[in-house]
Amino acid sequence: MSEKKTIHFISHTHWDREWYMPFEAHRHQLIRFFNRLLDTLENEPEFRSFHLDGQAVMLEDYLEVRPQKRALLEKYIAEGRVMVGPWYILQDEYLIDGESNLRNMLYGLRTAARYGPVTKVGYFPDAFGNISQAPQILRGFGIDCAALGRGVSDYPAYAREGKEPNYGRRASEIVWRSPDGSEIIGAVFLHWYNNASEIPADPEAARARIAEIQRRCESVSTVPHLLAMNGCDHQPVQRDIGAILGKLDDYPAKLVHSDFAGYFDAIRPYKERFSIFEGELDGDFTNGMGTLANTASARIYLKQFNHQCETLLERRAEPLALLASLYAGTEYPADEMRFAWKSLLKNHPHDSICGCSVDEVHTGMVERFKGVRALGRSMADDALRSLSAVLDTSEVKGERAVTVFNPNLQPVTEAASVTVDYPREEIVSDGELILRDGEGVPVAAQIEDLGVVFDYDLPDDRFRQPYYVRRFRITFTAQEVPALGWKTYALARDAAEISTDLRVYRRGMDNRYLKITLNNDGSVTVKDKKTRRAYITGIFEDTGDIGNEYNYAQSKDGVTVLSTAFAPKIR
Amino acid sequence: MSEKKTIHFISHTHWDREWYMPFEAHRHQLIRFFNRLLDTLENEPEFRSFHLDGQAVMLEDYLEVRPQKRALLEKYIAEGRVMVGPWYILQDEYLIDGESNLRNMLYGLRTAARYGPVTKVGYFPDAFGNISQAPQILRGFGIDCAALGRGVSDYPAYAREGKEPNYGRRASEIVWRSPDGSEIIGAVFLHWYNNASEIPADPEAARARIAEIQRRCESVSTVPHLLAMNGCDHQPVQRDIGAILGKLDDYPAKLVHSDFAGYFDAIRPYKERFSIFEGELDGDFTNGMGTLANTASARIYLKQFNHQCETLLERRAEPLALLASLYAGTEYPADEMRFAWKSLLKNHPHDSICGCSVDEVHTGMVERFKGVRALGRSMADDALRSLSAVLDTSEVKGERAVTVFNPNLQPVTEAASVTVDYPREEIVSDGELILRDGEGVPVAAQIEDLGVVFDYDLPDDRFRQPYYVRRFRITFTAQEVPALGWKTYALARDAAEISTDLRVYRRGMDNRYLKITLNNDGSVTVKDKKTRRAYITGIFEDTGDIGNEYNYAQSKDGVTVLSTAFAPKIR
Repeated sequence: MSEKKTIHFISHTHWDREWYMPFEAHRHQLIRFFNRLLDTLENEPEFRSFHLDGQAVMLEDYLEVRPQKRALLEKYIAEGRVMVGPWYILQDEYLIDGESNLRNMLYGLRTAARYGPVTKVGYFPDAFGNISQAPQILRGFGIDCAALGRGVSDYPAYAREGKEPNYGRRASEIVWRSPDGSEIIGAVFLHWYNNASEIPADPEAARARIAEIQRRCESVSTVPHLLAMNGCDHQPVQRDIGAILGKLDDYPAKLVHSDFAGYFDAIRPYKERFSIFEGELDGDFTNGMGTLANTASARIYLKQFNHQCETLLERRAEPLALLASLYAGTEYPADEMRFAWKSLLKNHPHDSICGCSVDEVHTGMVERFKGVRALGRSMADDALRSLSAVLDTSEVKGERAVTVFNPNLQPVTEAASVTVDYPREEIVSDGELILRDGEGVPVAAQIEDLGVVFDYDLPDDRFRQPYYVRRFRITFTAQEVPALGWKTYALARDAAEISTDLRVYRRGMDNRYLKITLNNDGSVTVKDKKTRRAYITGIFEDTGDIGNEYNYAQSKDGVTVLSTAFAPKIR
Repeated sequence: MSEKKTIHFISHTHWDREWYMPFEAHRHQLIRFFNRLLDTLENEPEFRSFHLDGQAVMLEDYLEVRPQKRALLEKYIAEGRVMVGPWYILQDEYLIDGESNLRNMLYGLRTAARYGPVTKVGYFPDAFGNISQAPQILRGFGIDCAALGRGVSDYPAYAREGKEPNYGRRASEIVWRSPDGSEIIGAVFLHWYNNASEIPADPEAARARIAEIQRRCESVSTVPHLLAMNGCDHQPVQRDIGAILGKLDDYPAKLVHSDFAGYFDAIRPYKERFSIFEGELDGDFTNGMGTLANTASARIYLKQFNHQCETLLERRAEPLALLASLYAGTEYPADEMRFAWKSLLKNHPHDSICGCSVDEVHTGMVERFKGVRALGRSMADDALRSLSAVLDTSEVKGERAVTVFNPNLQPVTEAASVTVDYPREEIVSDGELILRDGEGVPVAAQIEDLGVVFDYDLPDDRFRQPYYVRRFRITFTAQEVPALGWKTYALARDAAEISTDLRVYRRGMDNRYLKITLNNDGSVTVKDKKTRRAYITGIFEDTGDIGNEYNYAQSKDGVTVLSTAFAPKIR
């Protein structure tokens, strides 16, 4: 061996905040973990530092119960003995949207920074595969390196079979590139993040164990710096790891109680030796097992509720609150928005959003989603109320102005549905209501009489104002609503008739272009009257799942098949 | 009028933290409320002070989202312009146990004191009736006065009819006595806590409104100090109340923007004029409407889960953790215990535990209960593990020591159920297991073979230790386990037979004393063989509820009846 090797021991724990036990049971364990960590840092001078799993939420979860420990933790963070951040939580990158991936880093950096210097190392120890934009996101936050556990296969068969280029290459040091060209260096836990956990205290046993760790690392490494991960899931601190390493001066490699910053500084000069990986890292030695891809459909209601909350915050609450602050002069609810986002992020860890935890974890998640929804809706409603109060709708002729907001960055033509109230005493029939656009041109609209309903306002300066009103729901196509803007319509009582050739039947509808039929099997036939082609959509295939929460598997005559739901057929 | 009157205007809001909207929606409103309050205190010098509804949790709920406002709030609390405490939340006194009523005050005082001086006025503005021990509890915490809303009737009919002495006496100032003789003075909101809300800004209108408030107060008051409550449920601050009062110098009574401490100091000298009320205050002008007594059975699962959590904390987690700290030298989990209690208390407000809120509030409560249960069980299990490790069971002869703990303050004879593990390889049949007490005397026990089960330990110093074991459940009567103590039994493999005359059948069992039969209608007949009398128990009457979440009402031929469930009949 020409190069003298250095083995970097990194003490860590991988902390799933909720998984095989409910959150509060894991948190109770977290408190025991922190008790031991703080005691170790105080009483074991040879114990250099601890990596807090790359997620800042652990600090909040602990300090929420033991706030008096904050100063002590901050001292160790300042001394570089406790490494915190950069993420807020360890997310599933696929099951949350792009904005959530960004916010996870944004709020993670900000949260960690409140306690001290942040470890700027991308950390994906247990993510069930990694998205192609991960290097781009990290670079956007000034991070040039990452450690990751899954998605790079250690299985030589794929290489022999010439499968995907990202498969089958045994490399624990990589260059990882996003489609936009952003590039970082990466360390892959090919022998998992527990390859050096529980090192024996006996020097001879320790020597033998470390020799075995070294042998395995060298089999996949291209550099003289090897990564020995001293920890595992919810692993308590190994108190004596520093002392053990200190007694092995004569070991043939240099043994360091290290940290990720030190490790990446050491390997960065060898970058040209690294294998280059482009795009997403989803390879593994089985098809979907190692990356647990089937969690994508476990407890699908979680994915749906998450999408609803992401959309609510990104497309309603935030842009509307911004418009309200710009046009109505209201205070932007920055604190509430951050609180809502951090609550939502708490549902994004890989064991949470993936649906692969005990039931109690997921019922808790549903309540978290409900909290985000309640807060998000409150903020959006506040903003709409403030905006409506200052909008000048005097040019729109009619009895009621109806304003449609478009919070997107491009113009939108889309169905809009609004409710409009009239005093309960006033006799209004839906037949006499008509919707007009800003130029007074009638707009085709479905107008439903919802009858007399109870509702209330919550003004800022008076008691709750309850009322009964006659309510109508108006549904129509809002044409070309400008980006981050709005368009105002008017509702009036008017004898004018909207001419339309749309006819609605019990099981379908048609106009001059299309005929739509609801079929007995639940499918829908859409017939193009011009081309006379019929399209059948909405065919559901309902299959049983014989896998578990990690793996979907359907048995059909002994063959595992995937669902072909929603595939449209042309007749 | 001989006495010149003073009218005490107290600005307040009554804050149900969850009720007709889910918690996060009400909290969004709370933030708007605090924004306005802080702005008022800064910009309205004539606005003297605000009473924060007697519950400290409002500070935590607000500062959790806007922590940066803490110093400003503390400044106003120190200046006596914001009145905080003494409760943690505004509980339902009946549906939680005695200990919870105490903890609510204990944690309320401690929480409020972290922000500044605490207002030591008992506060029950909206409690659905008040327990007889309330004065005793307040006195125990050094509080000699209280303001309350319900339970003292303003309805003269009861007085005329000579019903309960506590009914029908129109008195807004009272002396209230607990059964133990503890006595406080009380102010009753006979015209509710909104009798002076939204005073008009126009001086003439204000004068007329205040004259009407005064007239109504005088009709029920015995003292020259009248209470004008300027606020209501979730009421935003009336910014100009101080300014309005300041412009009415010539009003025939003295108008003060006051606080409860000032008001009670003013009325204390007139104590001999007050009506004396003894015991619980549950009177109102209808039977159970004004005190909403039927909420006692709304969403009964909440009451059950609450009882489970109270028992877990009071009878398992706390005493066992105490024993562990005394005998095993473990750290008492004071932070976790306080956290668990405060979480549980968040389920105790009158709109929460009473079950009279929107569904989303109650699904959220269930998750809070689950959190308390997970944490409580973790603490109890920790303590049992620590205690078991240090118990000297060497004198007990057998293969497995079984220790039964009694966390009560009196000796207990009760059924105990424990599981005992054997290595899975070891062939043990439940037939050969026998339980003996400390003296080696066999104990009658039901021994069930649960088969091979998976389980795991979570040690403090190593990774999770999973295992498979052969598990048995042992159920027996633990005789006279000492108070706050334990008793150890031994499980052994032994041919000895326990002689018992108990015979178990498919639908019953008997021995020489009793014969128990399960009947077809679900009832149970217990026959005493000596007296030959038979008792039938467990008759359920299942009735429909035609009330709402506040009021249970059953219609039977047009007559409202109460359920007579569980009334034992003697044949």
